[in-house]
Amino acid sequence: MKSTLKKTIRIAIVGYGHLGKGIALAAKQHKDLEIIGIFTRRSPENIQADYPVYAYEEIFEMKSSIDVAILCGGSLKDLPEQILELAPYFNTVDSFDTHAKIPEYFEQVNSLNEKHTTLSLISTGWDPGLFSMARLIGQSILPVGQDYTFWGKGLSQGHSDAIRRVQGVKYAAQYTLPLEEALEEVRAGAGKKYTAQEMHKRICYVVVEEGADKSLIEKDIKTMPHYFEPYHTEVHFINEALFMEEHQAMPHGGFVIRTGTSAANDLQKMEFSLQLASNPNFTSAVLISFARAVHKLSQEGHYGTKTVFDIPLGYLSPQSPEELRKTIL
Amino acid sequence: MKSTLKKTIRIAIVGYGHLGKGIALAAKQHKDLEIIGIFTRRSPENIQADYPVYAYEEIFEMKSSIDVAILCGGSLKDLPEQILELAPYFNTVDSFDTHAKIPEYFEQVNSLNEKHTTLSLISTGWDPGLFSMARLIGQSILPVGQDYTFWGKGLSQGHSDAIRRVQGVKYAAQYTLPLEEALEEVRAGAGKKYTAQEMHKRICYVVVEEGADKSLIEKDIKTMPHYFEPYHTEVHFINEALFMEEHQAMPHGGFVIRTGTSAANDLQKMEFSLQLASNPNFTSAVLISFARAVHKLSQEGHYGTKTVFDIPLGYLSPQSPEELRKTIL
Repeated sequence: MKSTLKKTIRIAIVGYGHLGKGIALAAKQHKDLEIIGIFTRRSPENIQADYPVYAYEEIFEMKSSIDVAILCGGSLKDLPEQILELAPYFNTVDSFDTHAKIPEYFEQVNSLNEKHTTLSLISTGWDPGLFSMARLIGQSILPVGQDYTFWGKGLSQGHSDAIRRVQGVKYAAQYTLPLEEALEEVRAGAGKKYTAQEMHKRICYVVVEEGADKSLIEKDIKTMPHYFEPYHTEVHFINEALFMEEHQAMPHGGFVIRTGTSAANDLQKMEFSLQLASNPNFTSAVLISFARAVHKLSQEGHYGTKTVFDIPLGYLSPQSPEELRKTIL
Repeated sequence: MKSTLKKTIRIAIVGYGHLGKGIALAAKQHKDLEIIGIFTRRSPENIQADYPVYAYEEIFEMKSSIDVAILCGGSLKDLPEQILELAPYFNTVDSFDTHAKIPEYFEQVNSLNEKHTTLSLISTGWDPGLFSMARLIGQSILPVGQDYTFWGKGLSQGHSDAIRRVQGVKYAAQYTLPLEEALEEVRAGAGKKYTAQEMHKRICYVVVEEGADKSLIEKDIKTMPHYFEPYHTEVHFINEALFMEEHQAMPHGGFVIRTGTSAANDLQKMEFSLQLASNPNFTSAVLISFARAVHKLSQEGHYGTKTVFDIPLGYLSPQSPEELRKTIL
């Protein structure tokens, strides 16, 4: 085997919530990747993990043992802070997903990467990430056409939280699903434009406190502005046992569909979809595979801020270019 | 608009069969691409086209007006000959699709590209091409899993020809389709292995000569070794008018499905599919978009032989990296 990788790639996990735990799990499936440690702002002694756990600040002393730091915090506060602290010293991967703020985030990170000749891959995962790649491929190949991103079936943490704030609600899980009618119209190539609420419905599973007024709760949920009001919303009341049995997982997924017509007026359709039993574990699987790409690019002397649009796909794989041409192409 | 492209990319079409015609059509949908001419081994004066038609040999004199030559011949004879003649002088794109011979083809082309500092992207289209990209992404992100490539619904030229050689057959069209049962099992994540005939069926539409023995023809088709014998095959006899109305198009498509499990045993599924009213026009649409990437890479000083695994996706798009981050990511 002529491999481009002669040694393992040493990964630091920064933050140990759902994503960080997913990275620790995903690493077990990749022979060329090694977790050096988990770096946390909580008390390291309170965290149970299969890898050494350190205080966040200790990462700087361990710089020489780390090839890529995967930032596993949230986009609201953690990532914008941590990237500024870490990008001067480490190659990084993150899943910054506030779409509107990506250009600004890119500029900030890039100025650090350029100055310190480090490499940061920002905003990867599945959306932004794999779905962005599907949108780009669709638009480039079928420039006369329309693309559609449907999400679901997926658990929405934000919407579940919103339901839990309704008086009388004990537990709640909210799933976003594509509206089948819209999905079928899109696949048939109708080429229409839709708003988010014309493409999705919201299904809520709710456990109420004893004696609560279900019809009032249902009305409160369905009329909640922005969250539910413009959407087709279903509310199902279930008991606590069923809730604990069936609504503890974090499924997600979705569809990116591009329909277009050639100049000869043929209808052409491209579709990329994900169906995930665990949203965070899949996002982690994407991040760790891009960490490999970051290391390879950095080894070749590249630096600066990258997105999924800047990475040749072969870099995601542990196989050499020769093997890839022979076995997968 | 901060564009990375200040001028049009000048394309030569080499060969004017289905693919070459598809390129001529696809070019109309891309503002930054311009067709310089069609180069043919047939008599140029016999070809009707929207662009100037030249004899194949004339391409060498026009070298300075051509940024990328798209080779539109077949993989059996045309491409292996033409690439050796053209790669020393031109950046090229081709759809060489004899999977088993790709490594050898790569080595031959690469030695020319390296010597003459030209850039050739080989073996693009949808399989090899987009489907290869889907397989690579699936295997890299879900290393513990299985992938499946289904083809169809698609017209198979080779199988249609084989039926036409049966005595008493006047016209024939053979479509390959995924077997729904296998597709459903795969999507459910069963993780089984299948042979090609366990994944596909073959549907034949046949017009017979007057007085021909249909039951004999059906038997001859179904027992034809390799082509039909191991497959679930259906034969439908139709009249000529219906054949002319419904079986002149060249639809194709297929599915690349990767199912895998995370280390926590979640079932994760990725699926990429195409449904194409015109197989050659879609292949051409892919080739022309990769021609843009070839030009951009070459402008940056890259050379050598590339595959779809070596191309950052952003290069496929006419948009600048800034625009892509803002609008698609």
